[in-house]
Amino acid sequence: MRIVSADTGGALLTEDYEPVGLIATAAVLVEKPYRTATLKTVRYADPFSYDMSGRQAIREELLLSVELARRVKPDVIHLDSTIGGIEVRKLDEPTVDALNISERGKEVWRDLARELQPLAKGFWEDTGIEIVAIGKPSVPVRIAEIYAGIYTAKWALDYAREHGRVIVGLPRYMKVEIRGGKIHGESLDPREGGLFGEIEAEATGVAWELYPNPLVRRFMTLEVWRE
Amino acid sequence: MRIVSADTGGALLTEDYEPVGLIATAAVLVEKPYRTATLKTVRYADPFSYDMSGRQAIREELLLSVELARRVKPDVIHLDSTIGGIEVRKLDEPTVDALNISERGKEVWRDLARELQPLAKGFWEDTGIEIVAIGKPSVPVRIAEIYAGIYTAKWALDYAREHGRVIVGLPRYMKVEIRGGKIHGESLDPREGGLFGEIEAEATGVAWELYPNPLVRRFMTLEVWRE
Amino acid sequence: MRIVSADTGGALLTEDYEPVGLIATAAVLVEKPYRTATLKTVRYADPFSYDMSGRQAIREELLLSVELARRVKPDVIHLDSTIGGIEVRKLDEPTVDALNISERGKEVWRDLARELQPLAKGFWEDTGIEIVAIGKPSVPVRIAEIYAGIYTAKWALDYAREHGRVIVGLPRYMKVEIRGGKIHGESLDPREGGLFGEIEAEATGVAWELYPNPLVRRFMTLEVWRE
Repeated sequence: MRIVSADTGGALLTEDYEPVGLIATAAVLVEKPYRTATLKTVRYADPFSYDMSGRQAIREELLLSVELARRVKPDVIHLDSTIGGIEVRKLDEPTVDALNISERGKEVWRDLARELQPLAKGFWEDTGIEIVAIGKPSVPVRIAEIYAGIYTAKWALDYAREHGRVIVGLPRYMKVEIRGGKIHGESLDPREGGLFGEIEAEATGVAWELYPNPLVRRFMTLEVWRE
Repeated sequence: MRIVSADTGGALLTEDYEPVGLIATAAVLVEKPYRTATLKTVRYADPFSYDMSGRQAIREELLLSVELARRVKPDVIHLDSTIGGIEVRKLDEPTVDALNISERGKEVWRDLARELQPLAKGFWEDTGIEIVAIGKPSVPVRIAEIYAGIYTAKWALDYAREHGRVIVGLPRYMKVEIRGGKIHGESLDPREGGLFGEIEAEATGVAWELYPNPLVRRFMTLEVWRE
Repeated sequence: MRIVSADTGGALLTEDYEPVGLIATAAVLVEKPYRTATLKTVRYADPFSYDMSGRQAIREELLLSVELARRVKPDVIHLDSTIGGIEVRKLDEPTVDALNISERGKEVWRDLARELQPLAKGFWEDTGIEIVAIGKPSVPVRIAEIYAGIYTAKWALDYAREHGRVIVGLPRYMKVEIRGGKIHGESLDPREGGLFGEIEAEATGVAWELYPNPLVRRFMTLEVWRE
């Protein structure tokens, strides 16, 4: 099975570890044995002006997934929205109303569906590829999340080199290591069976430290500063 | 404390990782220090014609537990049904109605209780041994689950040797290794404190690969093929 | 950030692994990189006469936290009560009524607030330090919990030396090792990013074994006996 997925993660944090905005949307192609990505791509957001309602994230994820899927022709696209694995092209208003999710979730999806449902329908008519809102159960969604964390670390290296210092929060229970011209990231949950990712990145001129976010158990914080 | 428990797990999967039916019910005797079984036994189901409602699994588990318990005289039997640790011999209809579980769960248990309650009552009158529906909190239930996964791996070796190739899904967050005439299985959750199991099995003539099920996070897939 | 926190944990168990009462309240000062305590203190309870409603634990935790905070002047105190990070000095009766918690939780907090709210208010007026009921998301609360487990192990060593033998249950998914004049304790959940603690303690004259509590998955049991 060849699966494309995308996820948004990594947050710019204040000195008090409060989130300012999200940093990276990563899209990945995942193939057997489903432990890492065979292809990946990133789109950076501006964390200083970020819509935290979730609308911006899902929109970016779908657009970036479709872009990658046009190139690599996967069997299916996994979207990080846990609404039961429904196909996005079928998300008309009565279907959204009938979803077993919170009222706030429905409101977000009513708005989103207006734009994304026709896009998903058109993409499916062109290619036969379904976009399913499977969310958390998907391993490719988790691999995309790990890559979002890795790209967030890269963003932090560049930001600190330019501005002197930065603190970012990684996605849930993952760590990064920066060495030998690479950023290696991996899940801290062994139950996931060894999910990881890697990109090239230079850490020259900066130092870094990774430690638990004291206010959010199971989330790690990356601090980077110019040397 | 000497505890007998049983659990059903391991599923035959399609090429698309969809479950066809369950494979193995394992019963175990667990004694201090409660990390593995001191005795184990298995009953294989036919995954091609399996009742997925849960009725078949619980029935098999109780029968296999009682069979093992008659031989080893444990202090108690732990059943994998999370209904608050109630004794099965007390499960008459008003008691089932009063359980704090879903309507569907009650329906299953109303049917089951009709057959299993007299059996549990008779067994208790004969032996003084209680059968308690403790479910997930029980460590012996988890050890039985790990053995169900190990026996599923054995089933897959035999099936692939005969039919050429097979994909099975293991129970939640566990892995298996096949070598030196043995199948070793263990929990991938270190919070459980090192639960594991082992049986003898020959892997001659077949090759295998273990990898995450891409559609169900935290579940591993075992693929076996004839060489 | 410098955070003081406290937590109560570790239980005296019967031979059948049933809890009798809680053993230790630990207070800790946690500073960057937030993996262990830079200062710690303990107050032992009498497990043979313990109020298991939760009132006694929270009361002790707040008092011990305030005592430590008077010495070390942290930025904030984290209390192990998961009621949304509200400041305890603001917990008047209408606020408790409006909390999104169970009726039983409200009842406990109505009682507690009567005593603790004025105390928190007075402490805040004196020092400017807030006491927030953040609970499980807090890493310092978890570090306090790990220290409560470590002090419970110390209590068990002393108790066994005097009375011959004892079984205690540690807080959730943590282990202890006793050697070289020290008790080292650490989280068994790698997602937490390596939380641990250490105190000095002599294990002369006793032997010990750590194993999973068979009745409560993910909790370890420590058995200590005189040699």
